[in-house]
Amino acid sequence: MEKKRMLTGDRPTGKLHLGHYIGTLKNRVRLQHEYESFFIIADLHMLTTKHEPEHIREVDANARQLVLDSIAAGIEPEHVTFYLQSGIHEIHEMETMLQNLVTVSRLERIPSLKEMARAAHIEMPYGLLGYPVLQAADILCVRSHIVPVGKDNAAHVEVTRELARRFNNLYGEIFPVPEVLLGEVPTLVGIDGQAKMSKSLNNAIFLSDTPKEVEKKVMRMYTDPNRVHANVPGTVEGNPVFIYHDAFNPNKAEVEDLKERYRAGTVGDVEVKQKLAVALNAMLDPMRERRAAYDAPGRIEELIYRGTQRVREETRQTLYEMQKVMGWAGVWNRIRRKAEKYTATQEKLRRAE
Amino acid sequence: MEKKRMLTGDRPTGKLHLGHYIGTLKNRVRLQHEYESFFIIADLHMLTTKHEPEHIREVDANARQLVLDSIAAGIEPEHVTFYLQSGIHEIHEMETMLQNLVTVSRLERIPSLKEMARAAHIEMPYGLLGYPVLQAADILCVRSHIVPVGKDNAAHVEVTRELARRFNNLYGEIFPVPEVLLGEVPTLVGIDGQAKMSKSLNNAIFLSDTPKEVEKKVMRMYTDPNRVHANVPGTVEGNPVFIYHDAFNPNKAEVEDLKERYRAGTVGDVEVKQKLAVALNAMLDPMRERRAAYDAPGRIEELIYRGTQRVREETRQTLYEMQKVMGWAGVWNRIRRKAEKYTATQEKLRRAE
Repeated sequence: MEKKRMLTGDRPTGKLHLGHYIGTLKNRVRLQHEYESFFIIADLHMLTTKHEPEHIREVDANARQLVLDSIAAGIEPEHVTFYLQSGIHEIHEMETMLQNLVTVSRLERIPSLKEMARAAHIEMPYGLLGYPVLQAADILCVRSHIVPVGKDNAAHVEVTRELARRFNNLYGEIFPVPEVLLGEVPTLVGIDGQAKMSKSLNNAIFLSDTPKEVEKKVMRMYTDPNRVHANVPGTVEGNPVFIYHDAFNPNKAEVEDLKERYRAGTVGDVEVKQKLAVALNAMLDPMRERRAAYDAPGRIEELIYRGTQRVREETRQTLYEMQKVMGWAGVWNRIRRKAEKYTATQEKLRRAE
Repeated sequence: MEKKRMLTGDRPTGKLHLGHYIGTLKNRVRLQHEYESFFIIADLHMLTTKHEPEHIREVDANARQLVLDSIAAGIEPEHVTFYLQSGIHEIHEMETMLQNLVTVSRLERIPSLKEMARAAHIEMPYGLLGYPVLQAADILCVRSHIVPVGKDNAAHVEVTRELARRFNNLYGEIFPVPEVLLGEVPTLVGIDGQAKMSKSLNNAIFLSDTPKEVEKKVMRMYTDPNRVHANVPGTVEGNPVFIYHDAFNPNKAEVEDLKERYRAGTVGDVEVKQKLAVALNAMLDPMRERRAAYDAPGRIEELIYRGTQRVREETRQTLYEMQKVMGWAGVWNRIRRKAEKYTATQEKLRRAE
């Protein structure tokens, strides 16, 4: 039996950090063999909130970084098709074929879109309201069966499901109605103690950081602010350093020992942090090796280029089938056939003269 | 000096009638030599309110009728480029590049869109709210300078002007900001006396009606309902038969004579109507000749096909220039170049082994 298809992906906004790793990447690494995996680099979606030329110019560099980070984290390029959304020209046409099958008020009921506009400090652009429609085209162009998402994004995929059903009913059964694979998307606290690790908050440890950078960032991590000396008993709960130990240090005995001594005031922050840095670098070291293996000039670009060609071919086929059941294909075939016949007849007449 | 460009067009919804003729067609015939004229057959716009397969299947037949009627009415196919919107695949991509440069609330302030939804008895589809964005792509793809519209549609072209300016400012000056050529779009009363001649109201005289059909329709026209006998004085004002005489009978003396006698109760409805039928057929006769000359199988399709190819070429060029100033072209060039170089190097290595 053929494997089912899965679509995942990100907007190309820069390098990935530990928050991405435990949030989604780890899950993708786990799922990549269970499904035939497509990994979209969603640069057109970036346009909905960032359309200035300086963002567009960075797309290829950021796409490269995204793919390299994903491979470093364990995604196997032989098993996954990476592709850049803006290279799938037919996706725009697919969107037009879908955009009248959903109402404005339906889209306006999706809270995450309003939040995106608010976070970008912009008034809702027309294209942002249609984000879920373009996303439906992303998912349907490769006829994905499974879309792993967090709670926030489940509402978007629900629109895809509605559009697939609506299209199938109206014109003909061509799309699988994709299933949402609802997973927890854990968020990771920043090294400064802020609720979320984020590049823009400058509180992130990147998968591409060097061992030294990791060490330095860990050493300046926010811990229990009441603990002015190593012999003051400290709080473990909600303490970023221990959150990271729990998330990334596989040596559970060591972590338990550190927690006990921390609560008792018998361990210094420095030791706790040094052990965290060691654990993080032990996790990141094999990623660094995989990264180095793939970091040859052009290698990642070749993956993106080839994957994009493949998905483009698939999308062409999907669009053609859509247009066949909708009736467009027939419209154009009839016009072309009649036009060519007319031209041929005229040609014959001219030669007969 | 090169002529400025003008874009006009219609949705392909069926044959044209006298209302279309005095509403827009006559004006287009007059303007066709003043500008380089593009005539869009806007079938994608049809999708915003009619997306059922039965409408799509009729597109080519309706497009043919639209073009044939236009030529019959005096549009000269050597001077105009006819094209079918759905054949311009790049227009969808242009739309995506524009759709984030206008806000939802801006589009929601256009009353005609709400009216279109109301008239079609549907809740506003996402694509209908974006009608003016797709229309902007129509206008900008051939970089039209002039768009003749009636008052109702001026608001749409205003969106195109804003998008052109916004794009030019943000990325680079590539679009002329199109001028609205605001004209009166007179509406013609139906033969049943209803406010508007319309195919769906079954009160229309079509440009393609035979002389007999015209005569029959005129003879059953609604006139002054109080005039039960030919010797009862009648009202000329607002009387459909006289509205048509004023609009279509070039013999002003005859019309004045008929009006006088109608008011005095010294002319029968039959004579007034017969003279109208004669005048209408005198106007339609040369149209019938032009129609017959172009009605060869495939001739209209060839015009549409060739025009669409031409506009597609133009749109490709426009899209390429858009993507160049936006930075997309560079993104893809870099990826392709690096990928090809990588592939070539790998190839060399393999051969050296």
